[in-house]
Amino acid sequence: MKTSATIYLDYAAATPLDDAVLAAMQPYFSQQFYNPSATYAAAQTVHTDLEAARASVAHWLGAHRSEVIFTAGGSEANNLAIHGLMRQYPNANIVVSAIEHDSVLQAARHYNCREVAVKADGTIDLADLEQQIDDNTVLVSVMYANNEVGTIQPLKDVSQVVAASKSTRSSKLPLYLHSDACQATNYLDLHVARLGVDLLTLNGGKIYGPKQSGALYVKGGIPLQPLVDGGGQERGLRSGTENVAGAIGFSRALDTAQTMHHDEVSRLQKLQRQFLNMLSDSLPTAVVNGAHKRRLPNNVHLTLPGQDNERLLLQLEHSGILAAAGSACSASKEEPSHVLRAMGLSDAAAQASLRFTMGRYTTTEDVIRTVQALASLAN
Amino acid sequence: MKTSATIYLDYAAATPLDDAVLAAMQPYFSQQFYNPSATYAAAQTVHTDLEAARASVAHWLGAHRSEVIFTAGGSEANNLAIHGLMRQYPNANIVVSAIEHDSVLQAARHYNCREVAVKADGTIDLADLEQQIDDNTVLVSVMYANNEVGTIQPLKDVSQVVAASKSTRSSKLPLYLHSDACQATNYLDLHVARLGVDLLTLNGGKIYGPKQSGALYVKGGIPLQPLVDGGGQERGLRSGTENVAGAIGFSRALDTAQTMHHDEVSRLQKLQRQFLNMLSDSLPTAVVNGAHKRRLPNNVHLTLPGQDNERLLLQLEHSGILAAAGSACSASKEEPSHVLRAMGLSDAAAQASLRFTMGRYTTTEDVIRTVQALASLAN
Repeated sequence: MKTSATIYLDYAAATPLDDAVLAAMQPYFSQQFYNPSATYAAAQTVHTDLEAARASVAHWLGAHRSEVIFTAGGSEANNLAIHGLMRQYPNANIVVSAIEHDSVLQAARHYNCREVAVKADGTIDLADLEQQIDDNTVLVSVMYANNEVGTIQPLKDVSQVVAASKSTRSSKLPLYLHSDACQATNYLDLHVARLGVDLLTLNGGKIYGPKQSGALYVKGGIPLQPLVDGGGQERGLRSGTENVAGAIGFSRALDTAQTMHHDEVSRLQKLQRQFLNMLSDSLPTAVVNGAHKRRLPNNVHLTLPGQDNERLLLQLEHSGILAAAGSACSASKEEPSHVLRAMGLSDAAAQASLRFTMGRYTTTEDVIRTVQALASLAN
Repeated sequence: MKTSATIYLDYAAATPLDDAVLAAMQPYFSQQFYNPSATYAAAQTVHTDLEAARASVAHWLGAHRSEVIFTAGGSEANNLAIHGLMRQYPNANIVVSAIEHDSVLQAARHYNCREVAVKADGTIDLADLEQQIDDNTVLVSVMYANNEVGTIQPLKDVSQVVAASKSTRSSKLPLYLHSDACQATNYLDLHVARLGVDLLTLNGGKIYGPKQSGALYVKGGIPLQPLVDGGGQERGLRSGTENVAGAIGFSRALDTAQTMHHDEVSRLQKLQRQFLNMLSDSLPTAVVNGAHKRRLPNNVHLTLPGQDNERLLLQLEHSGILAAAGSACSASKEEPSHVLRAMGLSDAAAQASLRFTMGRYTTTEDVIRTVQALASLAN
């Protein structure tokens, strides 16, 4: 494959590590390799740097440093939120949207799990949400933006439904709102109080940081059970010698993503419009899935009626264009996407669907070449 | 602190990343950043490289590739072994040695947990082990080599006790042997069939690999429940986009450690002898804790009667020598070490104890300077 000519449009699956992030990590591999729990000054400096990274993450969330738990990635953070809470309430229930990431859905299904319907555009059905929450609900988990179709959920509305339910409930059980922000972090506001969330999942591997880095925001006072017991690192919620380089890289990646997010949203929205405009000219039968307005600026998700997405992906790859049929996590499975199903797409439509996710290095030329290739393949 | 003159003797707490390991990782941060679950050839190459790393780890264990689960470090691997098995048998019990790492002890104590006594030198009491295992025991966990005092456990004998118990039991419950090999990996044979273990924990951060890399060996056919649910990576036992660079770095670090382990054992045993000989001349009251013969070659653990280890550590640090009072994981806690207590040391003796752990870059000069400093401080 001619790497130089490759157009990578699968940024939702993985992002390359930012050079500046790698540079920030590098000292902690070599000179600053010390165990941050050791007592000598050289190790305490590492500990201080780790805590500064934690404070920096907290800053973007409008949170306190002590509310940020570094995890090995987004799936772990989602699992820590769900298992960490639900294991304490074996008779309670958890309410999730039907289009959550597998790491939320599969974890939630260990418990009494209720799945909230979404509308055809992937937006959560707030009336159904209201109905599903009852006095035994302890956790609601609704992702910030969907990894397949890019739909941004109305988190503030979700938060209001949760708050209203909490104010009228007769049980003494707590009720918390968790959101998986893995795909939102590059583009959206993460201020937890503005969003109204109690727990928030972040993932370094999707924001030009290292894979299996990330964090779970846990509002002060929420008791969680750890997934990993031991030496008591991460306030007892994630034992094990800290991945110092990973945490510092993640924090640096988050800084960059959040600092540039307004500019990057504008730039990608233009590319997204261009993609869709060119497409409606050259492939008018293509259907855009997901919300049109409340949508991640980097996501173009299409159904091309009558086409087979696996064949198209291979042909695109031969033209040097890398895209996806669903999420990478489910790419190896044979089942149609649960997200598209929940949005009401038929299995045939799902199998005619493609996901293009743009990123920091996507150019106008990339978009033009992609739509041209797609049109010539699908016409 | 004069870094150039620093003598680092806390290799059991953390090892610097080997330059060759970092070089092996680097491509997977940049050009090869793809998600190994994606379908295009560039991502499948990453997947192939990840599987080659897994096969390489399996090679050193005498295991099959499918039996190696990459984890985010040793604590997670220990937790996966224990919770992953024990959650399936709520009425069963687990038998562990009293001097296990906290990530084993704390995980095991969620269940019906029996702690086996150790002798004064930290070697497991095999008669007590035999007594503690009963028809309801599902898992025995005995560490390969202790992280504080360096005692190497007679794993083959442990395995024989487990096998004998298994052959005579009336229950239909399975019985497995797990061992935490985090501190043994640099110096000892890891062949699982020779050791007679069913589950084995490895940790990259202690073998000049990246922190929060590692693996759990799981003998084929042993069913475990994952700690992290989701996309089904790592045969469903550790969901989340793989830490490709971390796994490849870990595999490379393991290669180096196991390739050089005979030479490194000889070299360090000489330094260890020199340390102890010099010490018995200059500080004859010093007591060496842990087994003398069956001992990691890099570990010198001492009680200096009448001394205060915190004061000594600070004074050693002023002389440019970095050592430890216990394990780094428990360094921040105020309690005396559970390991030393189980070996019969008084709290006063524990508080007069120091751990020196040598490593790949430790020289004769380092040893001479350290013993001289220690003698002048403690006399």
